Amino acid sequence: MERVYNFAAGPATIDESVLRKAASELVCYKDKGMSVMEMSHRSAMYVDIYNETVALVREVLCVPDDYAVLFLQGGATLQFSGVPLNLMTGTGKADYVDTGNFAHLAIKEAEKYGAINIAASSLEDNYTYIPELKDMKLSPDADYVYITTNNTIYGTRYIELPDTKGVPLVADMSSNIASQPMNVADYGVIFAGAQKNLGPAGLCLMLIKKDLLGKQNSLCPKLMNWELQVSKDSMLNTPNTYGIYMLGLVMEWMKGKGGIDAFYQQNLKKAGSLYDVIDNSKLFSNPVAEKYRSLMNVTFVTGDKDKDAAFVKYCTENGIQNIKGHRNVGGMRASIYNAVPVAGVEKLIQVMRDFEKNNL
Amino acid sequence: MERVYNFAAGPATIDESVLRKAASELVCYKDKGMSVMEMSHRSAMYVDIYNETVALVREVLCVPDDYAVLFLQGGATLQFSGVPLNLMTGTGKADYVDTGNFAHLAIKEAEKYGAINIAASSLEDNYTYIPELKDMKLSPDADYVYITTNNTIYGTRYIELPDTKGVPLVADMSSNIASQPMNVADYGVIFAGAQKNLGPAGLCLMLIKKDLLGKQNSLCPKLMNWELQVSKDSMLNTPNTYGIYMLGLVMEWMKGKGGIDAFYQQNLKKAGSLYDVIDNSKLFSNPVAEKYRSLMNVTFVTGDKDKDAAFVKYCTENGIQNIKGHRNVGGMRASIYNAVPVAGVEKLIQVMRDFEKNNL
Repeated sequence: MERVYNFAAGPATIDESVLRKAASELVCYKDKGMSVMEMSHRSAMYVDIYNETVALVREVLCVPDDYAVLFLQGGATLQFSGVPLNLMTGTGKADYVDTGNFAHLAIKEAEKYGAINIAASSLEDNYTYIPELKDMKLSPDADYVYITTNNTIYGTRYIELPDTKGVPLVADMSSNIASQPMNVADYGVIFAGAQKNLGPAGLCLMLIKKDLLGKQNSLCPKLMNWELQVSKDSMLNTPNTYGIYMLGLVMEWMKGKGGIDAFYQQNLKKAGSLYDVIDNSKLFSNPVAEKYRSLMNVTFVTGDKDKDAAFVKYCTENGIQNIKGHRNVGGMRASIYNAVPVAGVEKLIQVMRDFEKNNL
Repeated sequence: MERVYNFAAGPATIDESVLRKAASELVCYKDKGMSVMEMSHRSAMYVDIYNETVALVREVLCVPDDYAVLFLQGGATLQFSGVPLNLMTGTGKADYVDTGNFAHLAIKEAEKYGAINIAASSLEDNYTYIPELKDMKLSPDADYVYITTNNTIYGTRYIELPDTKGVPLVADMSSNIASQPMNVADYGVIFAGAQKNLGPAGLCLMLIKKDLLGKQNSLCPKLMNWELQVSKDSMLNTPNTYGIYMLGLVMEWMKGKGGIDAFYQQNLKKAGSLYDVIDNSKLFSNPVAEKYRSLMNVTFVTGDKDKDAAFVKYCTENGIQNIKGHRNVGGMRASIYNAVPVAGVEKLIQVMRDFEKNNL
């Protein structure tokens, strides 16, 4: 079976070499006589895999020693509750920036646990940009400031960070972690659902500055207690052992390809070539403020629902899957995470040009 | 590489045919051109896998229509908080039976959210039996009664259920679900971490009587809200898509082998033959009250720590892994879940006899 080009927003493409390696080790891992799926999480053979994965994450993502690395379950959404339950216990206030669907959902959830100040929002403009930093109304006594660095549905990303004046910055980085260099020390907490750039769904990678641990609400479910999880190396109970192994394979692949810097250069080219085609098209357009365009999720529309649908169908006929935009915005979305090959983007561009030629 | 016999308590053995099928489909699933790991959870191809898995669970576990089937993340431990957060909102009281490590941890967690009555306990006797039903002090106004049907560390299981007089019975069935026939309608809620009899770690199967939905505490994290998850078919956010697929393969394998009845007969034989060897041994003994012996976790000791360690080493040299008992009880434990082959149990028996001959 030939593999298709998969532009899904997540779960998303994993590099074929990573999948082939996983397949070759699935029944018996190395000389261990069993699958990674069958290993006790307390066994030396699994703890080795775990420790290698943590080391790779630290190396590839440049994680400083004063940050803990956790692999939790429940995706980013569980951390919509986990963040306030672990951090909003000082003044009980937090600042949130509303830049899209997931930022909005995080706000709604946090409001259950404290007083949320919406420091800035692009909701009224259908999230087509990131609010200017100078317009953000940050509270000096907030327990944290919360941002979503890339907005999967709307195709926007932060290009610089707010100056929080010492208040910890918490970032949902689900859809652009590992896509561009970042300075982990700029953040108090970074979390990311794995299913976009890091591996299969069912894991949430967390990087937590250790001095932020120990502030949890007394009603925080035990498994969501970051301090406890850090003290147990993510093994307060059985973690998603196979997901962690897969994430390690993805990190190993990234490292072998030159790490984040190399992927960032490739991502600039992949996204750049797509935005170029869109900007020079008479059929397709992108509604996002140019400055804030995402490198990971390229949205575009024809302005005509029937044409959008016809284009999606034409893509499917040409080996391009999951190009339909999210229902909130319609149109199309090409999610071009690290593992979507350059050839896939080139194929999409060719299909866009062919379609445009026949549909103007 | 030859596969070893793996007696781990969980994550645990998965049948080799299931692993081989998973390996063969890992890079490209059927004619879909992508891995199951890469499929959007909203795509028709994945929703088909999801629906087939739910249907298989309903068939193999005989789940009535008035019960919802959920695949959540966080294992059983997240439900130690999830159960009180979703159910303990009537009188705010619940009855728990303390029969082992995980029952005890569930009690400690539930105490954060309400008034817990320990209806019975075998703690003082190191959990070597299940308390007699007639001795249980159940509260007529409890929001639920909580039991742990099989105690992985101590090797005990319930052989009959308490009469809760209409109060919903909640069961942590992690280590013996799918090992013997059960009447789902006897329970309000059944939950089970997948990593013993159902597939890889990172999933918690839940069967919930639908009329118990909608009672959640207002501070319940959104992702842990059973009612919401049921309304979204476990897809309030991206679930552990690959884990669900694997669980489906395990259900398919069970069905092909004759379903729960066939496995129950095999489990009676596997456990019976091991207990026979232990009971007729001059070296090994089992501390559990005979009536309550687990079919899934067979514990045994020599009574001498050095001999225990020598036996564990001898097992490893003979292709038998993870036979060491839990640190709470010492000695040995053979976890013989459905997928541990009869040949593995026979091999263990042979190794036990050989060791005994040379170590009396």
